[in-house]
Amino acid sequence: MTNEINLVDEYDIAIVGCGPAGLSAAINAAIRKKKVGIFGSEFCSPKLHHAPHIDNYLGLPEMTGDELRQRFLAHVKKMGLKIKDSKVTGIYPAADGFTLQSRDTFYQTKSVILATGVNTVKPIEKELDYLGRGVSYCATCDGPLYKGKKVIVLAYNREGLEEANFLAEIAEEVIVVSQVKENDARGIRLAEKIKQIPGKPVAILGEMWSTGVKLEDQELKADGIFIIRESVLPDQLVPGLNVSNQGIVINRECATNIPGVFAAGDCTGLPYQLSKAAGEGQVAALQAVKYLDELKNKAKKLATV
Amino acid sequence: MTNEINLVDEYDIAIVGCGPAGLSAAINAAIRKKKVGIFGSEFCSPKLHHAPHIDNYLGLPEMTGDELRQRFLAHVKKMGLKIKDSKVTGIYPAADGFTLQSRDTFYQTKSVILATGVNTVKPIEKELDYLGRGVSYCATCDGPLYKGKKVIVLAYNREGLEEANFLAEIAEEVIVVSQVKENDARGIRLAEKIKQIPGKPVAILGEMWSTGVKLEDQELKADGIFIIRESVLPDQLVPGLNVSNQGIVINRECATNIPGVFAAGDCTGLPYQLSKAAGEGQVAALQAVKYLDELKNKAKKLATV
Ligand SMILES: Cc1cc2nc3c(=O)[nH]c(=O)nc-3n(C[C@H](O)[C@H](O)[C@H](O)COP(=O)(O)OP(=O)(O)OC[C@H]3O[C@@H](n4cnc5c(N)ncnc54)[C@H](O)[C@@H]3O)c2cc1C
Ligand SMILES: Cc1cc2nc3c(=O)[nH]c(=O)nc-3n(C[C@H](O)[C@H](O)[C@H](O)COP(=O)(O)OP(=O)(O)OC[C@H]3O[C@@H](n4cnc5c(N)ncnc54)[C@H](O)[C@@H]3O)c2cc1C
Repeated sequence: MTNEINLVDEYDIAIVGCGPAGLSAAINAAIRKKKVGIFGSEFCSPKLHHAPHIDNYLGLPEMTGDELRQRFLAHVKKMGLKIKDSKVTGIYPAADGFTLQSRDTFYQTKSVILATGVNTVKPIEKELDYLGRGVSYCATCDGPLYKGKKVIVLAYNREGLEEANFLAEIAEEVIVVSQVKENDARGIRLAEKIKQIPGKPVAILGEMWSTGVKLEDQELKADGIFIIRESVLPDQLVPGLNVSNQGIVINRECATNIPGVFAAGDCTGLPYQLSKAAGEGQVAALQAVKYLDELKNKAKKLATV
Repeated sequence: MTNEINLVDEYDIAIVGCGPAGLSAAINAAIRKKKVGIFGSEFCSPKLHHAPHIDNYLGLPEMTGDELRQRFLAHVKKMGLKIKDSKVTGIYPAADGFTLQSRDTFYQTKSVILATGVNTVKPIEKELDYLGRGVSYCATCDGPLYKGKKVIVLAYNREGLEEANFLAEIAEEVIVVSQVKENDARGIRLAEKIKQIPGKPVAILGEMWSTGVKLEDQELKADGIFIIRESVLPDQLVPGLNVSNQGIVINRECATNIPGVFAAGDCTGLPYQLSKAAGEGQVAALQAVKYLDELKNKAKKLATV
C-alpha cells in the first residue's frame, strides 16, 4: 500500500449511504440528469437485510427485508447506477463544494446527501475530547504520523482488523482490542507483530493529548489510538453539522444547516421506517437539484455582470 | 332520498383521500391496530391514474401510474381494509375528537389525516366571502333551506349534475351552469325543471348575502348558489386549518396547527411526488397513533386522580 493521495471523480451530488434513503435519492437525482456518486459501506443496508417481515411499504406487501433490499438494488442497477463500496470518513468544505474522503481517496462534489442510517454508535468516554489529539478514525489518513511509535486499534468491525495490519507496516508496536465477532473476522490473519488484548474499552486516557485506553480491568498506554467502527457520528463526518439527540437536524426540504448538505432517512430521526426513508431520499434529491440549479444561475448572473 | 341525518361508524383515525399518501397512512395505521376509515372520492387518485410512466418509486421501476395505483389498492385490500367512496365535505371539532361530514352522513373520529392531493381549485371571486351566506358546497346539507326558492348550481363535475337533480326535488327553480365535459356527464339526465345556461362563472354577486352569479357575459339572480367541485379547499374542509400558498402547513411530524389533525402528500406542498406522499403518509399515521396513545394515557391519569 502506498501513502499516495488520490483525487478522483467529480460529482454533482454525492450520496453517503446505500440504504433505502440513499437509493431513493440516487434514482431521483439520476432522473434529473445529475452526476451522482453513491458511497456505501460493506453491504447495502444490513438493517434492511435483517428485517424479517415488512408489510408497510406501499405496493410491495408481505416481503422480507432482504427481498425489498434486492428489489431496491435491482432498481438502481436497472438505471445504470453503480454503488462504490467505500466508507466515507470525512466531508470538508472545498472551493467548488465539498471534498469527500474515503480512506486515501478524495472525491469532489458540488452537493452532499447524507443517508447513513440511524447511528447506534455511542462514543466511549473522552473519545470526542481527544479526537485529533491522538485519537483517529482513519488509519490511512493518520497512520503515517506514528512511524516508529506505539498505537492501539479499537476494532469494532472487520475493517478495524485490516487497518491494524496496515498500521503494523508503519508503527513500531500495534495492540488490537477487538470487539469483532469470530464469524465476521473469518479469513483475516493479523500480522505477527500485532499483540491482541481482550477486553472492553471504556475510556480514553490523557491530559492535553491522549495517552492510552482504559479497559474494564486494565489501562493500556500508547502514542496513538485508532477507533474503527461501522459508522461515523454525523457531526464527526461533517464538521459543523447541526445534530440533536434525535439525529441530523433538517427542515421539511431535508436541508441541514450547511448549504449544499441534505440528509434523509433514519439519520434524520424517528420514525425509523422504510417509506419515510425513501420519501425523504426523494425530497433531498430534488432539493439538491434545485440547489445546483440556483448555483448555476448565480454563476451565470455573475458572468454577465 | 330522505333528509334524515345519519350518524355512523366511529374511528380512531379517519383518512381523507385515497391516493398514495392516504393508502400509505392506512396500511401503517392498520398495522398498529387502529380502527381506520378511508374516505375517497369517485376514483382513487385520478392523478396517479394519468401518470404515463413512473420510474422513481424505489423498488417498482418502469411502471405506468395506473399499474402502481392498482398495486397500491391491492396492498390495501390484502390487509382487509375497505375504502368508502364518499367525499368528505366538512370536518368539525366534537366532544371526543372530530365529526366528519359526507353528504347526509356524519362520522365520529378521534383523529384525522388529510391526504387530499394537490389543490387545483381556484375559488371564483367573492366565493369565500359569501360561503355560508347563500353560497354552499353541499346540496344535501343546505338544500332544504331553499324549499320553494331559486338556486343556481355551478357544476364542475358529474356529482354537480346529480346534486342539481336532487335540488330540483326541493327548490322551485334550478339553474345549472355546467363546466362538466360531455364524456364525464354521460348517462346523466337532468330533471325537466332544470334550466341549463352556458357560460363560465367569474364571481359571486351580493351585498350582505349573495344574490347571484356573474358569468362572463351575463348576471344570474338566485336565492342560493351551490358550487360542486371535485375538491374542497383544505381550510374550508377544516375550519381554522393553517394553510399557506404552498399547501397545508405541517411540521416534520406531519402535524397541522390543530391537535389531532395530520396531513400528508401533495396537499402539504412541493414536491408533488409519489414517494414523498407515501413517506409522509407513513409518518402521519405513526404520529396519529402516538397522539392517540397519549390521549389514552391522559385519560387514564385523570381516572386515577
Ligand atoms: C429487525 C428490523 C425490522 C424492521 N422492520 C421494518 C418494517 O417492518 N417496516 C419499516 O418501514 N421499516 C422497518 N425497519 C427499519 C428499516 O430497515 C429502516 O428504517 C431503513 O433501512 C432506513 O433506511 P436508511 O437508508 O435511512 O438507513 P439504512 O438502511 O440503515 O442504510 C444506511 C446505509 O448507509 C451505510 N453507511 C453509513 N455510514 C456510511 C459512511 N460513512 N459511508 C458509506 N456508507 C455508510 C450503511 O452501511 C448502510 O448500508 C426494520 C429494521 C430492522 C433492523
Ligand atoms: C401526469 C402526471 C405524471 C406524474 N408523474 C410522476 C412521477 O413520475 N413520479 C412521481 O413520484 N410522481 C408523479 N406524479 C405525481 C403523483 O401522482 C402525485 O404526487 C401523487 O399521486 C400524490 O399523492 P396524494 O395521495 O398526495 O394525492 P392524490 O394522488 O392526488 O390523491 C388524493 C385523493 O384524495 C381524494 N380526495 C380529495 N379530496 C377529498 C375529499 N374531500 N374527500 C374524499 N376524498 C378526497 C382525491 O379524489 C384523490 O383520489 C405525476 C402526476 C401526474 C398528474
